[in-house]
Amino acid sequence: MPGSTYGKNFRITTFGESHGVGLGVIIDGCPAGVDFDEDFVQAELARRKPGQSRIVTQRKENDGVQVLSGVFEGKTTGTPIGMVIYNKDQRSKDYGHIFDKFRPSHADYTFHAKYGIRDYRGGGRSSARETAARVAAGAVAQLFLRSYGVTVKSYVSQVGHITIDKPYQELDLNLIESNDVRCPDPKVAAAMEKEILAVRKDGDTIGGVVSCVITGVPAGWGEPVFDKLHAELGKAILSINACKGFEYGSGFAGVTLRGSQHNDAFYTEEDGTVRTRTNRSGGVQGGISNGEDIYFRAAFKSVATIIQDQTSVNEAGEEVTVSGKGRHDPCVLPRAIAIVDNMAALVLADMCLRARGNRM
Amino acid sequence: MPGSTYGKNFRITTFGESHGVGLGVIIDGCPAGVDFDEDFVQAELARRKPGQSRIVTQRKENDGVQVLSGVFEGKTTGTPIGMVIYNKDQRSKDYGHIFDKFRPSHADYTFHAKYGIRDYRGGGRSSARETAARVAAGAVAQLFLRSYGVTVKSYVSQVGHITIDKPYQELDLNLIESNDVRCPDPKVAAAMEKEILAVRKDGDTIGGVVSCVITGVPAGWGEPVFDKLHAELGKAILSINACKGFEYGSGFAGVTLRGSQHNDAFYTEEDGTVRTRTNRSGGVQGGISNGEDIYFRAAFKSVATIIQDQTSVNEAGEEVTVSGKGRHDPCVLPRAIAIVDNMAALVLADMCLRARGNRM
Amino acid sequence: MPGSTYGKNFRITTFGESHGVGLGVIIDGCPAGVDFDEDFVQAELARRKPGQSRIVTQRKENDGVQVLSGVFEGKTTGTPIGMVIYNKDQRSKDYGHIFDKFRPSHADYTFHAKYGIRDYRGGGRSSARETAARVAAGAVAQLFLRSYGVTVKSYVSQVGHITIDKPYQELDLNLIESNDVRCPDPKVAAAMEKEILAVRKDGDTIGGVVSCVITGVPAGWGEPVFDKLHAELGKAILSINACKGFEYGSGFAGVTLRGSQHNDAFYTEEDGTVRTRTNRSGGVQGGISNGEDIYFRAAFKSVATIIQDQTSVNEAGEEVTVSGKGRHDPCVLPRAIAIVDNMAALVLADMCLRARGNRM
Amino acid sequence: MPGSTYGKNFRITTFGESHGVGLGVIIDGCPAGVDFDEDFVQAELARRKPGQSRIVTQRKENDGVQVLSGVFEGKTTGTPIGMVIYNKDQRSKDYGHIFDKFRPSHADYTFHAKYGIRDYRGGGRSSARETAARVAAGAVAQLFLRSYGVTVKSYVSQVGHITIDKPYQELDLNLIESNDVRCPDPKVAAAMEKEILAVRKDGDTIGGVVSCVITGVPAGWGEPVFDKLHAELGKAILSINACKGFEYGSGFAGVTLRGSQHNDAFYTEEDGTVRTRTNRSGGVQGGISNGEDIYFRAAFKSVATIIQDQTSVNEAGEEVTVSGKGRHDPCVLPRAIAIVDNMAALVLADMCLRARGNRM
Repeated sequence: MPGSTYGKNFRITTFGESHGVGLGVIIDGCPAGVDFDEDFVQAELARRKPGQSRIVTQRKENDGVQVLSGVFEGKTTGTPIGMVIYNKDQRSKDYGHIFDKFRPSHADYTFHAKYGIRDYRGGGRSSARETAARVAAGAVAQLFLRSYGVTVKSYVSQVGHITIDKPYQELDLNLIESNDVRCPDPKVAAAMEKEILAVRKDGDTIGGVVSCVITGVPAGWGEPVFDKLHAELGKAILSINACKGFEYGSGFAGVTLRGSQHNDAFYTEEDGTVRTRTNRSGGVQGGISNGEDIYFRAAFKSVATIIQDQTSVNEAGEEVTVSGKGRHDPCVLPRAIAIVDNMAALVLADMCLRARGNRM
Repeated sequence: MPGSTYGKNFRITTFGESHGVGLGVIIDGCPAGVDFDEDFVQAELARRKPGQSRIVTQRKENDGVQVLSGVFEGKTTGTPIGMVIYNKDQRSKDYGHIFDKFRPSHADYTFHAKYGIRDYRGGGRSSARETAARVAAGAVAQLFLRSYGVTVKSYVSQVGHITIDKPYQELDLNLIESNDVRCPDPKVAAAMEKEILAVRKDGDTIGGVVSCVITGVPAGWGEPVFDKLHAELGKAILSINACKGFEYGSGFAGVTLRGSQHNDAFYTEEDGTVRTRTNRSGGVQGGISNGEDIYFRAAFKSVATIIQDQTSVNEAGEEVTVSGKGRHDPCVLPRAIAIVDNMAALVLADMCLRARGNRM
Repeated sequence: MPGSTYGKNFRITTFGESHGVGLGVIIDGCPAGVDFDEDFVQAELARRKPGQSRIVTQRKENDGVQVLSGVFEGKTTGTPIGMVIYNKDQRSKDYGHIFDKFRPSHADYTFHAKYGIRDYRGGGRSSARETAARVAAGAVAQLFLRSYGVTVKSYVSQVGHITIDKPYQELDLNLIESNDVRCPDPKVAAAMEKEILAVRKDGDTIGGVVSCVITGVPAGWGEPVFDKLHAELGKAILSINACKGFEYGSGFAGVTLRGSQHNDAFYTEEDGTVRTRTNRSGGVQGGISNGEDIYFRAAFKSVATIIQDQTSVNEAGEEVTVSGKGRHDPCVLPRAIAIVDNMAALVLADMCLRARGNRM
Repeated sequence: MPGSTYGKNFRITTFGESHGVGLGVIIDGCPAGVDFDEDFVQAELARRKPGQSRIVTQRKENDGVQVLSGVFEGKTTGTPIGMVIYNKDQRSKDYGHIFDKFRPSHADYTFHAKYGIRDYRGGGRSSARETAARVAAGAVAQLFLRSYGVTVKSYVSQVGHITIDKPYQELDLNLIESNDVRCPDPKVAAAMEKEILAVRKDGDTIGGVVSCVITGVPAGWGEPVFDKLHAELGKAILSINACKGFEYGSGFAGVTLRGSQHNDAFYTEEDGTVRTRTNRSGGVQGGISNGEDIYFRAAFKSVATIIQDQTSVNEAGEEVTVSGKGRHDPCVLPRAIAIVDNMAALVLADMCLRARGNRM
């Protein structure tokens, strides 16, 4: 069974290569009656787009999305929503020099080993350009989730060794879009930006961490025992290019806490709502949302494409030199924000619909 | 869509509550012709079983599995393999005192919120006892993977603040089963054991980290763009009770490395095999195995059930005290090893079969 | 991907061979809160059971079902419902004479060709005994559908050349269970019974047609463009052993009608309900229920096991004689009724839940 | 869960409305290395296309397909194949007069009841124009199946009361494309054509039967117990617009045969191949192909759109008159051939890949 579909009830299937004719997505299962705000979809794509600031790749991509179906007179109709983004400024010729080379820590070799044939231009299907299709779909998921009052907000919390030390509760998440890094702490953002520019100057790249906070999810979303809410979030986020780790709630750091320190005590609010006094559970207990904020962190490694020369092999097994050329992306984190937000939205939309089958 | 099925081509569906009549699993898609070593299945269950040593819960569970179908004259037949484990020493009466209480950091409240009704005895469906069914299925996956030479080895690499500092390459993984903790470094194991006993004495619990190493996977397993090998491993491991995080290869620590430091250089072995000189990729590139060892780490929080009194609420929203009673599990890590091994095996068996469709 | 799962949101997975230890089913996705009437489940199994009358096989099977999970204090809990039926009176030795022979028009050869190994006893997985698991699951689907007022009623409308000529509207469907054939027209039933007994006397078998009427389905169930309501019904019914054809509404006979004769005119009832004056559409338009009765017909061929000697080949390709022995089933139609009813119920339960995702 | 995906391992998802921007399909799971003959895809679309002869609708549709991804240097790459067909000659204004009317025996009312909103133009998603996407995908399935030597050939065997009386073995299937009706018996074809023209003249429509013969399928395809080969064929064919029935092998007529008459005797050919002397099984036994020809028949009702005035209701429940206008299709059978062929090819491609998991 192939792997380009995500979701069960709100499900997307993407297609497209970096330098082919175009890429796109079908959303099947979006309920009828959602106000389709095409400008919002386009704005989300703009947040992912290359060339949007001086700290990301200067490659130009046309991320103009065309909606082909499933929307009528401004509303979704319940039928599949097809969206396509045509490739334009592809410069396929830029890739002639690597057509049979396996670039280090790229997917050239594994695609070759798996399929025996590959579109080598710009990474083909393995290119992060594919995530544009996910962002378009996730933006629709966000439109659907609006009626539930759910919001998803990611931000850059680490670049290289530079980190935000505060928990998300002490940050003003309205500041995320106030700087190019998309870090809600202006001072840390400035340091991160400086670091990224230094890395770029060296023709090198650097990794970091994205933190994400989801508010407004009611208790009851998530499908044990395998499709637990956090497990689906984990899979969705780990499927983003360059992601190496996922943790939610107390995460890796929390393992040193004893049960008596880690447990979140329940209490009842005046209106009868059951709440927890702390939230080390990260808004998910037993794989099901409990009504508290959901938060997680995702690790992104440095981008594999660097300007410096590297030793590698080609399809014939011969030693070759891979030389970086032209435009490269020193740090994906600022753009990854849009991808994390929208992948999370896709998971939540799916879980929302799946929960509709829970009771008589 | 419900959530008790994992896998596409090698797929399992589990059922069963902690204190119901029994639990079990159907494996659908196991190829015909696998030597069915029932003793091995039983041995894997024994590794997960409570009461196996003084550092785990003393609760007794009968994990004797009965194979109902899909095996004929010692071999799998390609038809569904049904397996059932009957519950015995359940002591359901032990749970009368909590029937309407929401135990802190358990799934009592979320199941109640989701379904409006729940089998409260021992956590019901949310109990880690459900993982016995997964272990039985994963053991069959291991039997299938034997013909590919694939091995999966997990070990405890952290308990509370006590950690193994060495990478797995410097450890003797044959020592994993040499101690009750299942830590391949005997000195560290002794310290961990001491810590667990101290925690138990306090009526408390403690978390830790499991590391896992998979060898023998050929290049080509994993189905981009969503069902990447590491994303499926992440989901499967995160779906295990108490798991809070997953990282593979260089993980969270690796984000501070620059691309020039992080990239794994390719070279060709004498027999023509393409290899990488380092393995920060963790054996997976672009979501597809590259033939190197696959390794990952998983964070497990401290168990929620503690002996100390805790404040909580009941279904009516009233404040109540939850008191621990009887047997508790101070640290799940030693038993989680078997679950991690077998969930990983399930992912690999599925990916192995899915890769059969990749080429003409 | 294997094939023992049916349904998406209300989904079942069956396991088990005719002469193995047992067979069973997991229902995953049954909503919480359904009154679980175990007697009803057992009664449905009794309708499918061999040996219930003199016109069906005298083989004795113990179809006592054991519920292992998913039900608590008389109600479904939303978690998987595991059910198992142990095999008893199997007489495996009866099958020693055919262990390597391919019985004509059975699945012996195709299972051999597909898997290279098979449990030859009584047809193994290909035995119609597997349908007991479906009936148990379908009975639970019926319990769920009760709250929607949906009823499913099948009856035998043809045995050999003996047919009911009246449309279902002119029959009293309360008479279905009044005779062993399960034909609501007593006179025709008597003729059918006579025919079946004559066929039995010859050591032969005979086929027929089952008609099915479903009432109470509201407008809106069915998921175009592939999972249309009638297409799912067709698949489910065709998957029953010996089924050779499926038609709904006007069916094959209707193709001679012109559009002006075939179209069902709409009108509005006093309460505003949109209805059709005729129902050649069979209650489904564009793959979605329209609120009218759903009706279909299914063809069942004569059973392959006959008492007369037949020429065949064995696994070595040698010519052999297959001799019928002991108990055989002259006509499956009377028992197939229970299977058709319950497969239809499974389709409807699934479609009911799937429709919950259609709108905001 | 939505319904616009067909297949598991070779899976397609379609999108698009009759009068929206465009429609299309993603094929996910087509193995790498298939020679991609775009002309063949286009030729298959031409066979389905309106306006191709005087006996079908004169509506003009542009069925030019654009391949967006998954093909590189003339071969499939194993990644999703995205294809889009833009709508052109839509004449949306033609539909202003029916925007709130429910046309008899169309899906207007059921889509309205299900989604609360619908693209009423030309039937929107329920239009048979959607099948163009299926044909494009099925053509790729045919390209894949070529390497297995599998061929699929459908023909018109009945129009109204005019039928071919011969079994397919006595027909020259090379004559299918020799006439506009796509009936391999020239005399019968002429009578059918005459009938269709008479029906057109009356502003009316007529139904018929498509027969289909599949050769070259090896023994072993089909996944019991639910995804039997004939059950999947049944579902796929029944999902085509206007299809009311499906039968394979001996079908409905065969139910009058006794077991001793119906069973297909096995014998061994000189090269050791196991064959059957007759083929009432229709090439499928126990849901698995047995190596013989697979054949089935499908009933198609008369098209609902007629020129004559009809009484109906509108969304407000008021009685209205629906008047046919302009172009109508007197008989879909000649064009349905291409849809049946390609839906069958999609089923076979999927089953071929699924069978790869059957054995070690």
